[in-house]
Amino acid sequence: MIDERLASLNITLPSPPKPAGSYVPVVIADKLAFVSGQIPIKDGKVVYVGKVSEDVTIEDAQKAARLCIINALAHLKTELKSLDRISKIVRVSGYVNSSSDFTEQPKIINSASDLLFEIFGQKGQHTRIAIGVSSLPLNSVVEIDLVAEITLV
Amino acid sequence: MIDERLASLNITLPSPPKPAGSYVPVVIADKLAFVSGQIPIKDGKVVYVGKVSEDVTIEDAQKAARLCIINALAHLKTELKSLDRISKIVRVSGYVNSSSDFTEQPKIINSASDLLFEIFGQKGQHTRIAIGVSSLPLNSVVEIDLVAEITLV
Amino acid sequence: MIDERLASLNITLPSPPKPAGSYVPVVIADKLAFVSGQIPIKDGKVVYVGKVSEDVTIEDAQKAARLCIINALAHLKTELKSLDRISKIVRVSGYVNSSSDFTEQPKIINSASDLLFEIFGQKGQHTRIAIGVSSLPLNSVVEIDLVAEITLV
Repeated sequence: MIDERLASLNITLPSPPKPAGSYVPVVIADKLAFVSGQIPIKDGKVVYVGKVSEDVTIEDAQKAARLCIINALAHLKTELKSLDRISKIVRVSGYVNSSSDFTEQPKIINSASDLLFEIFGQKGQHTRIAIGVSSLPLNSVVEIDLVAEITLV
Repeated sequence: MIDERLASLNITLPSPPKPAGSYVPVVIADKLAFVSGQIPIKDGKVVYVGKVSEDVTIEDAQKAARLCIINALAHLKTELKSLDRISKIVRVSGYVNSSSDFTEQPKIINSASDLLFEIFGQKGQHTRIAIGVSSLPLNSVVEIDLVAEITLV
Repeated sequence: MIDERLASLNITLPSPPKPAGSYVPVVIADKLAFVSGQIPIKDGKVVYVGKVSEDVTIEDAQKAARLCIINALAHLKTELKSLDRISKIVRVSGYVNSSSDFTEQPKIINSASDLLFEIFGQKGQHTRIAIGVSSLPLNSVVEIDLVAEITLV
């Protein structure tokens, strides 16, 4: 079902990007699946680098946030085999590479939240934090992690 | 019981503020209630804006942190019907809008921690992170999220 | 078993440092143990202070990250009595005190991740976020929190 929904939204999940360090992409503890922080990597390269509004437009930062979600879902699909096992998106944390006077982090992370709602409907309605940070790994414009509730098989 | 405790502390829970984006205030996964990042909104307006010690005094930032907790509890009450269902405050994450040389984040977030202890007693003793961030949504001086353990009904 | 592993790595767990605020070091909710944000405190003093690459070398920041993990394990041992009760490290969050152009946070937090793998093997493979922040409590160069899954007794 979620695969069909992704197809109808013209979203193809990539081969999930390798973690940029010595950790793993997904750990499941009981009914919670924790996903490592994702950056907007495509074909092995960080696509959007720098600070929002200085180096990257808000529109591009929004695309970056969507790409983080797509990478997170690619990892979850690899781990869970089927995204239909996701019963709920629980938490999204969005870290936006920001100069000290940028205050529109919600605008960026909304594009991640909206995408989750488009894909998962009610099950995609999550809690969230959105904060500005001074810098991010590989100079990514945004990093997003998430926690999902899954059904056990 | 918690309602009476709030009354004795002269705390009135407001109508919970609307999330500043496309997400929801509370999601429950099993016995954990996740609350979205709260900012010091009162009557629809962010009351304390700017960076601690530059734009906002430590005392006002402490009031802001209390207000975040009050807003979080307002959301939890709406979701759980009764705050007595909270068996434990598990985690508090405090993000303080800080210039690069401000290092007293604990002083700010302590006012949130102290309030939880005043309200919930032993059950309010939580784990915590407190960090300085370069900027926050709507230029808020502080953002706080929390995770509580609840009893199922 | 973990105690023997620590001994073979020449790691002695210290008396766990007191939290720098009004909160507790560990809270257990169901099968998850949440550990408060740890800073590189040794003998009551923050050993590595300032920003990576400006005030602290990458090598020293890596040592700081290891020290955070050792302090986290000291707290877990106090709480759980035995570290053998840890069935899985679930999540590590690493906050690196960074100027706005430092982008090698993974290099710092890798030393924390590597240590967890050395100590716990497969069980130590966790999910992770690594971000740069504008400042940290007591001017620490790094703050790390973690969540572990435990077996109930």
